[in-house]
Amino acid sequence: MKQIEKLMDYRQSIRLVDATLRDGGLVNDFYFTDEFVKALYQTNVKAGVDYMEFGYKASKEMFDVDKFGKWKFCDDEDIRAIVGDNNTDLKLAVMADVGRCDYKTDIKPKSESPIDLIRVATYVNTIPAAIDVIEDAKNKGYEVSCNIMAISTAQELDIRTALEMLGKTGVDIFYIVDSYGSMYPESLARLVYFYKEMADKYGKKLGIHAHNNQLLAFANTCEAVGDGVDYLDATYSGMGRGAGNCQIEPLIAFLHNPKYNVYPVIKFNEEYMEPLKESGVKWGYDLQYLMTGLLNQHPRTAIAFTQEGRKDYTNFYKEVVAQD
Amino acid sequence: MKQIEKLMDYRQSIRLVDATLRDGGLVNDFYFTDEFVKALYQTNVKAGVDYMEFGYKASKEMFDVDKFGKWKFCDDEDIRAIVGDNNTDLKLAVMADVGRCDYKTDIKPKSESPIDLIRVATYVNTIPAAIDVIEDAKNKGYEVSCNIMAISTAQELDIRTALEMLGKTGVDIFYIVDSYGSMYPESLARLVYFYKEMADKYGKKLGIHAHNNQLLAFANTCEAVGDGVDYLDATYSGMGRGAGNCQIEPLIAFLHNPKYNVYPVIKFNEEYMEPLKESGVKWGYDLQYLMTGLLNQHPRTAIAFTQEGRKDYTNFYKEVVAQD
Repeated sequence: MKQIEKLMDYRQSIRLVDATLRDGGLVNDFYFTDEFVKALYQTNVKAGVDYMEFGYKASKEMFDVDKFGKWKFCDDEDIRAIVGDNNTDLKLAVMADVGRCDYKTDIKPKSESPIDLIRVATYVNTIPAAIDVIEDAKNKGYEVSCNIMAISTAQELDIRTALEMLGKTGVDIFYIVDSYGSMYPESLARLVYFYKEMADKYGKKLGIHAHNNQLLAFANTCEAVGDGVDYLDATYSGMGRGAGNCQIEPLIAFLHNPKYNVYPVIKFNEEYMEPLKESGVKWGYDLQYLMTGLLNQHPRTAIAFTQEGRKDYTNFYKEVVAQD
Repeated sequence: MKQIEKLMDYRQSIRLVDATLRDGGLVNDFYFTDEFVKALYQTNVKAGVDYMEFGYKASKEMFDVDKFGKWKFCDDEDIRAIVGDNNTDLKLAVMADVGRCDYKTDIKPKSESPIDLIRVATYVNTIPAAIDVIEDAKNKGYEVSCNIMAISTAQELDIRTALEMLGKTGVDIFYIVDSYGSMYPESLARLVYFYKEMADKYGKKLGIHAHNNQLLAFANTCEAVGDGVDYLDATYSGMGRGAGNCQIEPLIAFLHNPKYNVYPVIKFNEEYMEPLKESGVKWGYDLQYLMTGLLNQHPRTAIAFTQEGRKDYTNFYKEVVAQD
């Protein structure tokens, strides 16, 4: 049986990563108030969360800074305005999206930055470009993860090849990213099995980032814990693109590590996440996301359906099946 | 690895049980319109669902028929008004709650009734009374299941003893019922393991009825499928007491049996479940249910919190932890 057989105990090597601002920012174009971000930071510190992802390091050449909140760009000074010198155990992360990030100029040396971890997001067909970002960040002194997105549409042989290439770099963590929310626990277990082979071979850690299209984001994260994955992405109230992410509330309880506290998490939900929902920001499971998840499709059609306030699920079903 | 390793294939012995009227009836006191019930019946037939549970056979001595919809009592003639002679492959079920059912008089011989399956609901400490209901129903010619509720609060030795007693009766199916939504997939797997030993010893089938307090109702049902459980309870939009049940929409897709069709299920959701939600009937995951699930408590305090329209989750947390 699995390591989580001992459900009353916990694994010291597990790290909890709050991705609310980054994946949640995809829902509201990163327009979080400073009050929200400060309260989230303080909540993460109190709750014992290990990493807080602030957003993307997006290229200001490619994206108009007037059309997004500042957490799409995550300037070091904006982070410092929230965390000061960050004299806490909470580490800070940002995401560098391959092909959409001016990493050479926008990512400063670690010695000058409040950031601890650079998360390099890539598709399986852009690994050489990802390796360039990884080595740049590693040379600047950061912890680095490589998050291979849309893994449910990748060929197993391609993933193996990608991991062999990444294994030889300085990257610290291989991240499994079920962008389409298409995986079942059992299919994830098989994927983790060969990720783990590669991680052990090259001395890397593993991470999981799940989406909730089929109501399995939390369950798949539990499965990954049992299979030896240590870095766990989650968000407050599951806030994230489309059907959202693994919910931090049940996850923090599941982990059973006394360093984690659920009370500040519940308080933040009451004081900040509920008002955010009531203000009209929309995310979370619904039938349109189930359909794209089932069909292993990008959720963009389902997101459009949601944004248009549509409720004609049967028409949507015909649209996605017809286009499939 | 598990039987669901072959995720592209399906298991012939699986039976899908729609429990919407019965567990969902706990949310709206069984006040479903005839139009709703007829449409649900026709949807189940089209979708290839194997069993439809109409409600409870509740005692009219104990419960005032003027205070509940008719599906709390499930008179044969009320079922016939919906299904006629039920010349379909869909079998019909009702629940007989031990201690709350005048089974000797209210359950007619199978030859006179449209019902196929009697589901006997019991706690682990009322097994002798359950056996009396089981034998009565079996002698009248029905298929019979025994649904041991609140299993997460039962002692393993008591469950074993109960299953030994039940094994010697004519009951056809042992049902695992996670009433409090307290189980994780891994803890469920261990429970199923010894249920399966007993089921194999006595030639019985296994069933699962999950609740969604920790967002795991569907995931736990997937886990149970992989562990050899054949009878799967689910409801439309997860409608059921408190945090609700396993959602039939992702489950029907997960099962991959071509006899099941998801399209009529989506159509019913659009035409009937969405309006039901919009009319103010409330169920589904929220933080108060997570808390009672975590603490392995009956959800009654969380249901009261919901009904009062409260949103002060932190106060509720203090209330349930203090009372724990």
